[in-house]
Amino acid sequence: MKHTIRDIAREANVSVTTVSLILNGKPNTVSEATAGRIREIAAKYNYAPNHFAVGLVTKKTNTIGLILPDIANTFFAELAKSVDGFCTASGYSMILSNTNNDPEKDLTAVTLLVNRGIDGLIIAFSQDENKERSAAFIALLDDLGVPFVALDSWIEGLKCSGVSIHHSKGGMMATNHLISLGHTRIGCITGPRGSYTAERRLKGYIGALTEAGIPFDETLVAAGDYQFDSGSSAAHLLIDRGVTAIFASNDLMAYGAYQAVQSRGLNVPDDVSIVGFDDLFFSNILQTPLTTIHQSVPALGQEAWNLLYDRLKHDGIDDEYRQLEPHLIIRDSTIAPKGRR
Amino acid sequence: MKHTIRDIAREANVSVTTVSLILNGKPNTVSEATAGRIREIAAKYNYAPNHFAVGLVTKKTNTIGLILPDIANTFFAELAKSVDGFCTASGYSMILSNTNNDPEKDLTAVTLLVNRGIDGLIIAFSQDENKERSAAFIALLDDLGVPFVALDSWIEGLKCSGVSIHHSKGGMMATNHLISLGHTRIGCITGPRGSYTAERRLKGYIGALTEAGIPFDETLVAAGDYQFDSGSSAAHLLIDRGVTAIFASNDLMAYGAYQAVQSRGLNVPDDVSIVGFDDLFFSNILQTPLTTIHQSVPALGQEAWNLLYDRLKHDGIDDEYRQLEPHLIIRDSTIAPKGRR
Repeated sequence: MKHTIRDIAREANVSVTTVSLILNGKPNTVSEATAGRIREIAAKYNYAPNHFAVGLVTKKTNTIGLILPDIANTFFAELAKSVDGFCTASGYSMILSNTNNDPEKDLTAVTLLVNRGIDGLIIAFSQDENKERSAAFIALLDDLGVPFVALDSWIEGLKCSGVSIHHSKGGMMATNHLISLGHTRIGCITGPRGSYTAERRLKGYIGALTEAGIPFDETLVAAGDYQFDSGSSAAHLLIDRGVTAIFASNDLMAYGAYQAVQSRGLNVPDDVSIVGFDDLFFSNILQTPLTTIHQSVPALGQEAWNLLYDRLKHDGIDDEYRQLEPHLIIRDSTIAPKGRR
Repeated sequence: MKHTIRDIAREANVSVTTVSLILNGKPNTVSEATAGRIREIAAKYNYAPNHFAVGLVTKKTNTIGLILPDIANTFFAELAKSVDGFCTASGYSMILSNTNNDPEKDLTAVTLLVNRGIDGLIIAFSQDENKERSAAFIALLDDLGVPFVALDSWIEGLKCSGVSIHHSKGGMMATNHLISLGHTRIGCITGPRGSYTAERRLKGYIGALTEAGIPFDETLVAAGDYQFDSGSSAAHLLIDRGVTAIFASNDLMAYGAYQAVQSRGLNVPDDVSIVGFDDLFFSNILQTPLTTIHQSVPALGQEAWNLLYDRLKHDGIDDEYRQLEPHLIIRDSTIAPKGRR
């Protein structure tokens, strides 16, 4: 196992900064005995300090890093702009790394940004079902020596603060809306199965059905990947199975579902009602404006920044997880099923 | 004037790396006389090396920086994803900084990224009409010591390679299409006046009118800022002035123009034809799919990366500027004017 500067600090019972000063030969007020002990421990572990990263431990850069899974998804692009705005207003700069939803890139992005000198990190995780890699990632984050905050998503076992919309409540609201219109054969297009946000939105869908006494039929659940094309394929499948309404776990997939409906000469909402999740800007300018679950991007960006900022300024603040309220925005893509209008 | 490590290298007639090694006390093979001269020049200019930046001069990081004016604009978000993909395929990482179209932030973003250790930069400039600031920015870029490439936009006097779509040809194609349908009263919604991309697209509009013998009427030019809302306000103005067709200088403003038309109980294209510029993903899923000028995002991302990569790997390559061909995509938002159908 590779030992970090934190391991050495812990074993020598000194701060990370002290280790950094000693190993980099910087001016310090540490006794020769302590300095010697630090060097011995470092030698024992073959610890080769990364001069850039270690040097930066002692230097505030007024820069934070933001890690996003898909910068081309308007939701994350707007979130990036929002976080950037709050940083700038507080005199901080932000640098961003895109992981393309590849959990391997989450790890490299964290290392990349920390080695480039940042004071803190906001991370919207990629989706990972590999438990071993998740554990390694959590260990890496724990070793960072900079505060970090989880945004939108979460990894089980993580020890940090975070903020997201209440995903399952959102899924439940979307599904309840369709049930209240009289639909009983409701399909669900999920995000990537196993992912935090997708599973929670699905849980909300199942919860709403159960509460309404509608038996859960798993053949009406079709897996997507949060991209347009997957929404279209999944909708074709669900229409074949006779659904009268679809809850798409994000707006991009809802747009794909529109396309599937229209390509069959059918109509939204007359033949199939559709609800999305996110409330992207474009959802309101579509032919049939989309009924969807609104996530407040400015609120998410601000909460993430506030959580991080508090931790940049003060040590020892307890972790907290904030879940923002989702809002159902009813537009024109949902209507009662045929025969119940 | 602040002196950079490059000034010192030039005056001492040595490489930047040599200056860095000497001033940081790193192992080197430089003669004591030369080392002394370097230290003298540094002292004369009160040159205080930034230890992180200077240290990094000697170290390849396999990381590049990308600077974008508006990450929330889908065009730039997709461009970021594209550049990131090509970097990753070549074993490089990318970090991104968003400037919110603020030219002051262009300067700080360059400094930020270079001080964080990058091998090269791709810059899509914010729009600046301040000549003095532009000159200072060009001087800064010249002093960087890392290769950089201009993407999408340009600053007069810049000495580097770059790639963009042929903006004026695109503006001309859009306008020619409307003229060929029989329109003579054609409005133009520009991007931010004075900006490189906006002025060139406008130039294409004026060129097409002139070539067709239609007198240019500057009351039919309305300034926007590339955002949705400005497209809507500008379209209201142009409709009041009796246009039968509008060329919007980007798709986001074209969507705004749709909204203006519809809010008056009018219809696209029956009452007003609209052409956009960019061909965002969403333009094809609108109620009335948008006729627009297609920019190939993958081609732009790849050319920008190739230009930079060549310069990362080889010294002394001549600057070149590549202009990609625009393509007119005819969809349903354009039709002959009333009385000529």
